[in-house]
Amino acid sequence: MMKEYEHKDSLYGRDLITTEDWSLDEIMRTLELAEDMQKNRFSPKYTELLKDRSFFMFFHNPSVRTRQSFECAATELGGHAQYLEPGGMRLKTKKTAGETIEDTAKVMSRYAAGIGIRILEDKIASYGEGDNMLREYAKWADVPIISMAHDKYHPCQGLADIMGLRKHIGENLKGKKLLLYWGHGALARSWCSVQEALLLYSRLGMSITVAHPEGYDLDPEVIKTTKLHCKEQGQKFEIIHDTVKGFEDANVVYARNWMSPNAYHDGEFHKEEEIVKALKYTDWICDEDKMKHTDDGLFIHPMPVDRGHEVTDEVASGKRSIIYDVAENRLHVQKAIMALTMSEKYR
Amino acid sequence: MMKEYEHKDSLYGRDLITTEDWSLDEIMRTLELAEDMQKNRFSPKYTELLKDRSFFMFFHNPSVRTRQSFECAATELGGHAQYLEPGGMRLKTKKTAGETIEDTAKVMSRYAAGIGIRILEDKIASYGEGDNMLREYAKWADVPIISMAHDKYHPCQGLADIMGLRKHIGENLKGKKLLLYWGHGALARSWCSVQEALLLYSRLGMSITVAHPEGYDLDPEVIKTTKLHCKEQGQKFEIIHDTVKGFEDANVVYARNWMSPNAYHDGEFHKEEEIVKALKYTDWICDEDKMKHTDDGLFIHPMPVDRGHEVTDEVASGKRSIIYDVAENRLHVQKAIMALTMSEKYR
Amino acid sequence: MMKEYEHKDSLYGRDLITTEDWSLDEIMRTLELAEDMQKNRFSPKYTELLKDRSFFMFFHNPSVRTRQSFECAATELGGHAQYLEPGGMRLKTKKTAGETIEDTAKVMSRYAAGIGIRILEDKIASYGEGDNMLREYAKWADVPIISMAHDKYHPCQGLADIMGLRKHIGENLKGKKLLLYWGHGALARSWCSVQEALLLYSRLGMSITVAHPEGYDLDPEVIKTTKLHCKEQGQKFEIIHDTVKGFEDANVVYARNWMSPNAYHDGEFHKEEEIVKALKYTDWICDEDKMKHTDDGLFIHPMPVDRGHEVTDEVASGKRSIIYDVAENRLHVQKAIMALTMSEKYR
Repeated sequence: MMKEYEHKDSLYGRDLITTEDWSLDEIMRTLELAEDMQKNRFSPKYTELLKDRSFFMFFHNPSVRTRQSFECAATELGGHAQYLEPGGMRLKTKKTAGETIEDTAKVMSRYAAGIGIRILEDKIASYGEGDNMLREYAKWADVPIISMAHDKYHPCQGLADIMGLRKHIGENLKGKKLLLYWGHGALARSWCSVQEALLLYSRLGMSITVAHPEGYDLDPEVIKTTKLHCKEQGQKFEIIHDTVKGFEDANVVYARNWMSPNAYHDGEFHKEEEIVKALKYTDWICDEDKMKHTDDGLFIHPMPVDRGHEVTDEVASGKRSIIYDVAENRLHVQKAIMALTMSEKYR
Repeated sequence: MMKEYEHKDSLYGRDLITTEDWSLDEIMRTLELAEDMQKNRFSPKYTELLKDRSFFMFFHNPSVRTRQSFECAATELGGHAQYLEPGGMRLKTKKTAGETIEDTAKVMSRYAAGIGIRILEDKIASYGEGDNMLREYAKWADVPIISMAHDKYHPCQGLADIMGLRKHIGENLKGKKLLLYWGHGALARSWCSVQEALLLYSRLGMSITVAHPEGYDLDPEVIKTTKLHCKEQGQKFEIIHDTVKGFEDANVVYARNWMSPNAYHDGEFHKEEEIVKALKYTDWICDEDKMKHTDDGLFIHPMPVDRGHEVTDEVASGKRSIIYDVAENRLHVQKAIMALTMSEKYR
Repeated sequence: MMKEYEHKDSLYGRDLITTEDWSLDEIMRTLELAEDMQKNRFSPKYTELLKDRSFFMFFHNPSVRTRQSFECAATELGGHAQYLEPGGMRLKTKKTAGETIEDTAKVMSRYAAGIGIRILEDKIASYGEGDNMLREYAKWADVPIISMAHDKYHPCQGLADIMGLRKHIGENLKGKKLLLYWGHGALARSWCSVQEALLLYSRLGMSITVAHPEGYDLDPEVIKTTKLHCKEQGQKFEIIHDTVKGFEDANVVYARNWMSPNAYHDGEFHKEEEIVKALKYTDWICDEDKMKHTDDGLFIHPMPVDRGHEVTDEVASGKRSIIYDVAENRLHVQKAIMALTMSEKYR
């Protein structure tokens, strides 16, 4: 998307495909606005920002939280979010006639103030296709393209996490230790939330321990960038394959299942294979015993939680769990993103 | 749902799963507000009550009237209703991993001003499961849970009926006779509307005659409570199996098909069996000949009407039919319920 | 629909099933309002016209542009459009029990300010059934019925086209030459857009050349009326079967695939047959070579464009293509139609 009116003090017109594409200053501005929007949720200073404007939510994958929170966000800014599914669209693919992304994006730009897109691994044939698709939309659209979670990144989740950590730990996250812990489970989850977390938490100065069984490596490019952020911040980065060790002195434990890099083969996503494989690692669960090793660590998770697999009920519903706060933050950060990128008031 | 701010003069924060859970005073307050909302439909005194707020409509079963009227209700109060289907949700069941009602309800409470749920017999394995589910949501949610029709009850329909009767008969329904008449039909209908009618009409002092073929008994618990209401009000209650006799002197005829208690067996709902069985009772239809026995009785029905089975066209479109008025009332009573339970103005 | 309040200076309460049902004066009034609405898109003079009102969009067929543009239109007028699918409705058919159009339309009229309906060829058993259905709704509804494209007509597309031509050619279209050109393609398209174009362009004084392969005749009744309009306006009307000749001196080229009259047989719509047949006519494509014969002609198309079949990329994305402007106009004309027929301000 080329927008002549872009200038460095404004986010108006900007896409958000990953927080990596935004400067640290832009990220902080968004978080601070989100925090004020939480304090003054229905204040008139915010309820007219997208008045009478439409936001298009384009769900290749269904969703609970993301749909509810984006639709509420548009409503609370005075606008309206349209829930669109690709079943209703005639997009061109390699196999079928239909509309090009160029045409779709250009026309949508005439109607909407912004476009959100969600596309996860089971709707694509190989890792990275979803990210390419969002960037193709961004190329042609005259309005902002916002990721509502795609195969690689989930910027809104990353920002909601950080807003939660700022509330419970404080504004200075430097030197705090994150344990990103692979939990076994029956849902073969996307890499998008955990990868966004690695990139953003490390950028904000946290030290990072990733713990997972052999064979569950994440995107090497994301790992490389995360390491770089840690190095720049003078923090430790490590990947371990131990079920317990990483909990030592952790300030934040993020326990989540994710699929293996072998999930895609023969041009398809093999969900059932992944589930069978993942369910065998029954020791990989975040429980109270392991949490005792932490520095009174917070439990964080992007939800939905697969209780009994990823984490025990005791931890997920425990007093150090901030999962509901983080889920609520999705609303506030998305309002802030929409306001800053789409409202003429912030132009 | 435990809400510390509840006090007896306000309905703010209250669930509505059946009118039985509300006091007679609370019911009358709701009806009176609904009547004023009808008179002043787009008055500024009502169009800001849920301004910028979201109401979640959770449809396990699709719906026409209920969806249209709830979504209009939210719009007319200045808010927005989200249409949510469980296909888009990953709820935990006995067989599949997913999210618990605890987690779902707690997060929804962060986003929405209230939650409506519809779940009918074909989505559950035994009678009462839908009611249990609503009560489980109500236990965890911090915002009101409103039944949009479930296996046992349909409070919004009951209130819409009464609003129609008040208009066409007058405010004092005491001693008026209701004939609740089973009509044959091809739709194997839920017990929810007719059970709510029995409970609410009897509570307001009407005498009750239920007429149905042998084998079409309703929930014994509902019948017992209805009898109790009739006794308290000094009114007659009877169940008969005659196709004509109940019309005698009736002030209101409510002709509607419903399924038999045998609809659930072997852990499933058997719709086709019910339809085959019900279609044999061709004498069980409300027609003009039978209506002549009434005391110039009104015809009432929650719609959609299965014309030619439950009732003839002549009666359904006749001058004593109030079906369109009652359908319209769904909008007004739902606006009143949403305003009283969710708007801070009524706190 | 009989509405006692109708008078000849107001469109309030009127249906729009085809522009043929409206006078030329009514059409011009709509276009002029749409043009002002484009200039003053979010002006307060327009953003309250349907405040708190609901518009029902009833999609028997899914849609991109139509759904997005109608839903935006309602939002921008201060109201809300409900997206309704017939899968959620229990309508009576010859084979199944359900609700009559009489009942459906009468109840919807109690809730909504207007009703849009889309029904295309694959949802009906013979040509004309969709049009009959809209007229049946119009008979019973107390609020306006608006075609959102049906088997015969697409009035909103026709008006959006004309708004585009007025911008790029000028207000006086008299004597300008339209080439309506059949393009080969893989989508077996409806007659609705091209038929509405023939009727409306000819009525506004354009000369008409229709070019298509033998066997792709359109509705004879529409052709007859179009001829009559051309005669009244003193303009030429011709149908040719040549792939090039019609481009000569054309001011506007409308290249679009459409199905043959044989698409319906044995009580069904045969889409795959139509596609196989149509894809053989590879010479029938609008390309730059052919466009050179025009009088610097505009390229127009209702979208989605089947690039590489109906038209080349070079023409569709070329400087004489007005497809995005026309797509945008859908929003403005629909806002004007909704305002004039549904807003009390225009009563």
